[in-house]
Amino acid sequence: MSASESSTSPLTLNRLSVYLRCLRHLQAQGVRRISSQELADRYLLSATQIRKDLAQFGEFGIRGVGYDVDQLAAHLTGLFGLDRDHPLVIVGMGNLGSALARFLGFNQGPFRVVAGVDSDPAKVGTRVDGLTIRASSDLAAVVAETGALIGVLAVPAEAAQPCYDDLVRAGIQAVLSFAPVLVQQHPRVPVKNVDLRIHLEELAFLMRGRRGA
Amino acid sequence: MSASESSTSPLTLNRLSVYLRCLRHLQAQGVRRISSQELADRYLLSATQIRKDLAQFGEFGIRGVGYDVDQLAAHLTGLFGLDRDHPLVIVGMGNLGSALARFLGFNQGPFRVVAGVDSDPAKVGTRVDGLTIRASSDLAAVVAETGALIGVLAVPAEAAQPCYDDLVRAGIQAVLSFAPVLVQQHPRVPVKNVDLRIHLEELAFLMRGRRGA
Repeated sequence: MSASESSTSPLTLNRLSVYLRCLRHLQAQGVRRISSQELADRYLLSATQIRKDLAQFGEFGIRGVGYDVDQLAAHLTGLFGLDRDHPLVIVGMGNLGSALARFLGFNQGPFRVVAGVDSDPAKVGTRVDGLTIRASSDLAAVVAETGALIGVLAVPAEAAQPCYDDLVRAGIQAVLSFAPVLVQQHPRVPVKNVDLRIHLEELAFLMRGRRGA
Repeated sequence: MSASESSTSPLTLNRLSVYLRCLRHLQAQGVRRISSQELADRYLLSATQIRKDLAQFGEFGIRGVGYDVDQLAAHLTGLFGLDRDHPLVIVGMGNLGSALARFLGFNQGPFRVVAGVDSDPAKVGTRVDGLTIRASSDLAAVVAETGALIGVLAVPAEAAQPCYDDLVRAGIQAVLSFAPVLVQQHPRVPVKNVDLRIHLEELAFLMRGRRGA
């Protein structure tokens, strides 16, 4: 297991996550079977890449017949561990944390926000979308009570490292960080940094040559 | 130009954006030259994929010598149009919009938030991080005054389509959407949807087998 963990790159995971989203879209449309080429054509992907990525995790497609959409979706769901709950605790309930609580709370899926903590005593005890904000100093107790497994860092740059360290001590297993710095990572608690510029850069690319033309 | 636009998939753009980020990191560390294999090893990428992706846009590496880091970074910066400003207007200055104004405002780069609008009269005229919130009904004037080119949708699902249509009419060239729905797109105004679940799914993958083991 650790071999496949270390050999699966973030870009491959990203692609698998995209495939899963496409498969769900196909399920919603009632599509039962699809070839890698059709999947590629529909969603602007590479058929060769799809076959290569999926081949790492088993034999799915039948040559000339394609993939069984439900079966492949179920397999990827299991591969990502999405058949289990992944409760979230948000650290930093300012504008961003509150927005995330509302936004992520939208989703019915395995990622539910079960708690939010803040270091500001004025915020503690107030409610955001059904969540009562708890004190950052109670983080370990909050994690134990709620069973939170993923921590979401929605704090300023200077607070990111101490808050990450608190999450590690509280027993959190992985961290999604919106803080604009890289933290020193504990080997057992991976951090995924969200960088919104990557999306803006993609738009900038599409806009090339539009201006002054 | 439109040929390369339509033939470059979102996943390729995503990878090019990652390469650019890696190159900037190397520049900060004073690295002048790197091979595709070294780049792949350092950042958990695929050397074959790097060579293939970059080959679409010209001849960069010298066999056995590698890439000139500054030159390649400059080329990718130009390719993405990041040598020009891409001013942003945020539509919806609630928790999410305000958080984005603060967060994106952080960046010194080509993506500056120059305006924010909201349909709530109580918000109009208030300030967020140096921005004075304007009325949504003034969007066209705001865009003309500020030269905003990218619109950021930070509105609830039901407001996404009318707000996107307003942005198109106001002359915006591309849209980054945080709304949890897909909008009907105008052919000249591409929309990039931000889906935070993709990051959470990546973390879930890394957490597989940790629990109950």
